[in-house]
Amino acid sequence: MKKIRRSGRLIDLTNHLIHNPHQLIPLTYFAERYESAKSSISEDLAIIKEIFESQETGLLLTVSGASGGVKYIPTASKVEMRKFLTDLCSKLEDSNRVLPGGYLYMMDIIGNPRLMNEIGRYFATLFANNHVDVIMTMATKGIPLAYAVATYMNVPVCIVRHEHRITEGSLVSINYVSGSTKRIQTMSLAKRSLKEGSNVLIIDDFMKAGGTIKGMINLVEEFQSNVVGTGVLVEADHVEERLVDKYTSMTRLSEVNTKEKLVKVEIGNFFEKLNILKEE
Amino acid sequence: MKKIRRSGRLIDLTNHLIHNPHQLIPLTYFAERYESAKSSISEDLAIIKEIFESQETGLLLTVSGASGGVKYIPTASKVEMRKFLTDLCSKLEDSNRVLPGGYLYMMDIIGNPRLMNEIGRYFATLFANNHVDVIMTMATKGIPLAYAVATYMNVPVCIVRHEHRITEGSLVSINYVSGSTKRIQTMSLAKRSLKEGSNVLIIDDFMKAGGTIKGMINLVEEFQSNVVGTGVLVEADHVEERLVDKYTSMTRLSEVNTKEKLVKVEIGNFFEKLNILKEE
Repeated sequence: MKKIRRSGRLIDLTNHLIHNPHQLIPLTYFAERYESAKSSISEDLAIIKEIFESQETGLLLTVSGASGGVKYIPTASKVEMRKFLTDLCSKLEDSNRVLPGGYLYMMDIIGNPRLMNEIGRYFATLFANNHVDVIMTMATKGIPLAYAVATYMNVPVCIVRHEHRITEGSLVSINYVSGSTKRIQTMSLAKRSLKEGSNVLIIDDFMKAGGTIKGMINLVEEFQSNVVGTGVLVEADHVEERLVDKYTSMTRLSEVNTKEKLVKVEIGNFFEKLNILKEE
Repeated sequence: MKKIRRSGRLIDLTNHLIHNPHQLIPLTYFAERYESAKSSISEDLAIIKEIFESQETGLLLTVSGASGGVKYIPTASKVEMRKFLTDLCSKLEDSNRVLPGGYLYMMDIIGNPRLMNEIGRYFATLFANNHVDVIMTMATKGIPLAYAVATYMNVPVCIVRHEHRITEGSLVSINYVSGSTKRIQTMSLAKRSLKEGSNVLIIDDFMKAGGTIKGMINLVEEFQSNVVGTGVLVEADHVEERLVDKYTSMTRLSEVNTKEKLVKVEIGNFFEKLNILKEE
């Protein structure tokens, strides 16, 4: 890259940091890229840090020393998150979503990458310090949100399935009891898609009694790994018995009245969890 | 947002444009955001345009007039794409991927959001001018790449499935013949997930004879919509009869020898398609 001035460096640095979150980048990388002194790069980064932090769009951590560098942690402001989640609740309360059996049509929300990325950013903000190695989700509806979180956290995704696939090699399968229907079901994960000793963040689109999430927690144990967090887009309230106690929900479905086509949705426990973490 | 200097505006503008691709943003939006004159914003954008275009990281289109503004189109440089795809081919040639039946383990590639986003960016570059309204993909393995393309193009995703789901309301289903196994299969799409008259870009992870893609093309017709492009991550070569003739592949699997655990992968027809488009 040819030598460029500060204004150009600020643009390219911003672009580079946004595309490489949660990754320690040595200052020498940028010094060479822009043929500039490390001291100039440090000044550039100080300007970016100030803007990112005043906008609450991200943190810029600088690690000094020989193996040091800069790391960008995407974040979102509480005000912005609350506004977005309030809007999302209204969207979910649309009576046209009510399907026979009390199910809710959500594919327009899940099918919208912009909404998924935004919520992914919030989960990435919440779990930024949980040393997440990999995101686990259940096929198929959890996948879009899982990838959104994974993109902001810069970690891989492993996909658990109900059916067996011949294209994934050896599998580890477990049986679990669905919390709502009480039926025994099977879920499996390709053996080589999760390393022993990984810190796993479970992400899913919907949680009723939590049977699927509980199954995933057991599956993580089968892989000698640890669950460091669980995040769901929507949790259903008024459940007889919740099988999972530790989880973070973005929204909470408190009522679905099929007859009157009435849906009530409120913000989940996300901000409570965020406050606890921030105080630690 | 409080008034900030040019250096701050360049950082925030870059951030904003990257997160809002393919969207016309009026200059007044930025003028108000930064409490600055439109002429200053125009100068800022000229600097960003120069850097983005010299780095081939994106185009900045300015539309003048009352309904005008600026639009960011993410792109990637040919040199960068060729290097990346060559590396990807080497990764795919790893003999440990060979599974019984001649299948290839690819979940480490598909499970890596960074790789998916990079390839998504290339497809978004190729199809930037195809007026894509929506990305269509097949559950489950096509989903990650589909969302990556959709993020860069700022359009929604609709997910076609083999099995029926009660949580999606009315469905449109079609039967199709699998190209490789010659068996009749069913695929379906939620009625309300695709509007009539949409321009659809089909994205999938793998294409052998093309039966699934052909099925999706028929499904698009059922919705009175148009296929404006088809992109696959890997196409298998040495297929008796290809059911689809127009498609773009990132890589081509030319040989899988299960006995000797030998895999041969080359770059697909992506660059040929890119050259044709660029000459138009």
